[in-house]
Amino acid sequence: MSTFSIRGGFQDIVASSRVRLARNLRGYRFGRQSAETLRELTDKVWDALQTAPSLAATFTRTEIVPNTAEAQRLVENHTISPALAQAGGWALVSADGGVSIMIGEEDHLRLQVMGAGLCPRECLAEAQRLSTLLESRLPFAFDERLGYLTACPTNLGTGLRVSVMLHLPMLTATHAMNHVVNWAGRQGCTLRGAFGEGTAAEGGFYQLSNQITLGMSEEMLCQRLTEMATQLLESEQKARQTMRERDENALSDRLYRAAGTLLTARLLSTDEAERALSDVLMGVQLSMLTGVTAPELYAVMRELRPASLVLAAGRDLSSRERDEARATLVRARLRGLWNGLNV
Amino acid sequence: MSTFSIRGGFQDIVASSRVRLARNLRGYRFGRQSAETLRELTDKVWDALQTAPSLAATFTRTEIVPNTAEAQRLVENHTISPALAQAGGWALVSADGGVSIMIGEEDHLRLQVMGAGLCPRECLAEAQRLSTLLESRLPFAFDERLGYLTACPTNLGTGLRVSVMLHLPMLTATHAMNHVVNWAGRQGCTLRGAFGEGTAAEGGFYQLSNQITLGMSEEMLCQRLTEMATQLLESEQKARQTMRERDENALSDRLYRAAGTLLTARLLSTDEAERALSDVLMGVQLSMLTGVTAPELYAVMRELRPASLVLAAGRDLSSRERDEARATLVRARLRGLWNGLNV
Repeated sequence: MSTFSIRGGFQDIVASSRVRLARNLRGYRFGRQSAETLRELTDKVWDALQTAPSLAATFTRTEIVPNTAEAQRLVENHTISPALAQAGGWALVSADGGVSIMIGEEDHLRLQVMGAGLCPRECLAEAQRLSTLLESRLPFAFDERLGYLTACPTNLGTGLRVSVMLHLPMLTATHAMNHVVNWAGRQGCTLRGAFGEGTAAEGGFYQLSNQITLGMSEEMLCQRLTEMATQLLESEQKARQTMRERDENALSDRLYRAAGTLLTARLLSTDEAERALSDVLMGVQLSMLTGVTAPELYAVMRELRPASLVLAAGRDLSSRERDEARATLVRARLRGLWNGLNV
Repeated sequence: MSTFSIRGGFQDIVASSRVRLARNLRGYRFGRQSAETLRELTDKVWDALQTAPSLAATFTRTEIVPNTAEAQRLVENHTISPALAQAGGWALVSADGGVSIMIGEEDHLRLQVMGAGLCPRECLAEAQRLSTLLESRLPFAFDERLGYLTACPTNLGTGLRVSVMLHLPMLTATHAMNHVVNWAGRQGCTLRGAFGEGTAAEGGFYQLSNQITLGMSEEMLCQRLTEMATQLLESEQKARQTMRERDENALSDRLYRAAGTLLTARLLSTDEAERALSDVLMGVQLSMLTGVTAPELYAVMRELRPASLVLAAGRDLSSRERDEARATLVRARLRGLWNGLNV
């Protein structure tokens, strides 16, 4: 995945922002469709895209075959949802991976726009442009009173899900997360592990997203999420500052050891690599480690995931082979960190 | 402590060899003496040493004051026994630390000679030269039938204790040590942690020593211990070779991670440092790690012990301050390893 064309602030602390619009077409029943209908829907969307030829030219049309490394890699990169990878369907994906149209999820269409850093509003604007473009050719199911109709009532109205991926390792370490999760809940938002519902927060990465889609404008939802993310980032910064003032040496110890592990290990599990990369990222954010940038670290985090490794190798890899390939990849990518360590 | 003047083979795998002769003087009761008598004995030994002026010139006379960092440092370097450091007394120590005469241990005199590598016989020859020199001036308690008389009957006869410090990390890792300890016992020898009775085998360092002092010549005792040490070293080599053939990558992972920890940590406990240095030492022995030599690693292992750190700092250090000083020392000493890692 190349870097997204949409970019916001805080790119070192906010991995990405994401906006997803749920849309359904009149004339088709709600919910899961047959393979034939999915292909038909995909053809229609693909045709509608062609009304903007310069945009359409950047898109690739990919059939999502369940349980394949390619489907898994798209999930690892957040290009498609785990549900689509499991059920199968189609994805139309822009060249930078930042825009994807999923066909085969619980709604007929899910338009997703991703950007680097804190940029929900920029993502929303892009998603709305895409929705408007498609709506000019496709009859979206819309109710004057309820708004966009969706398969699941939780998406009714704007059909909007906004989410921001935050790097909160120090709040995690200081056991403040329970408090923070409750705080988000009281404001109609959820905070959970980086890969969505039911996943652990590997390396202190959390996804903050809205729960409510009804009764608030899209812009207001984005605005609220941006404000909440900003507050969380400030808390995280404060926790880091406190830790640094109280015991800089213990903090250095943690960050440097993480760098040492990544630069010397010959076998690395995904979990260990993510935890160590999270610490190195914190070191870079605090200017305590140098020689590598936050975007470079985010790129390594994508590359080291199982399906990405398998696709890079061009063949199936055993768990042990992946651990070896991961360690080799990480050492190669972090050579600059090595030079910056200055033992 | 500087490097010993006596040197044998296997200097990379055998940290040191040591020979100790127990001697007592006629005219004094056996066992612990008053402070006054200890000083008197020390004067006599010191005077006797002067009959060989060039030898005497290399010796320093040190009062051992219990519970001081200096006494503890001498124990850490194996220059004096823990018992002498606890009871207090005197030590006459050669410039390289290789020869020490302890006054105040359970016998009136304990002559100790230490060398690098596998060299019990060379150490014995030096200890016997020293004993003969002292005996020309001091009336040693000797019985025609029993040999040298000692405070404890286990030392009766030759009064000889031979020990060899072996680095057996792979036998430790493969859980073969119980078997090996029993094997040594059946041959009248003991195998225990590096710092003698009651200490754990930190980083896979073991001390092999004879139990029997009676009914065998000094030369035969040394010969037997050397043979047993050689067998253990061969078993260790074989275990390493097996591990390397079976899973070289897992072995590399272990050795490189140890190097990474030592080169990046800002806080290091003695235990963690010893374990990691033991692995790095194994890496050097297997030519899998470069840029540092086994004798350099042995030197760091001595320097990083608590009392040595305190004396180097010139002031008392808290446990936390020692962990910081240890990490700083290790990074400074292992800079060559860093360059040799070649990430």
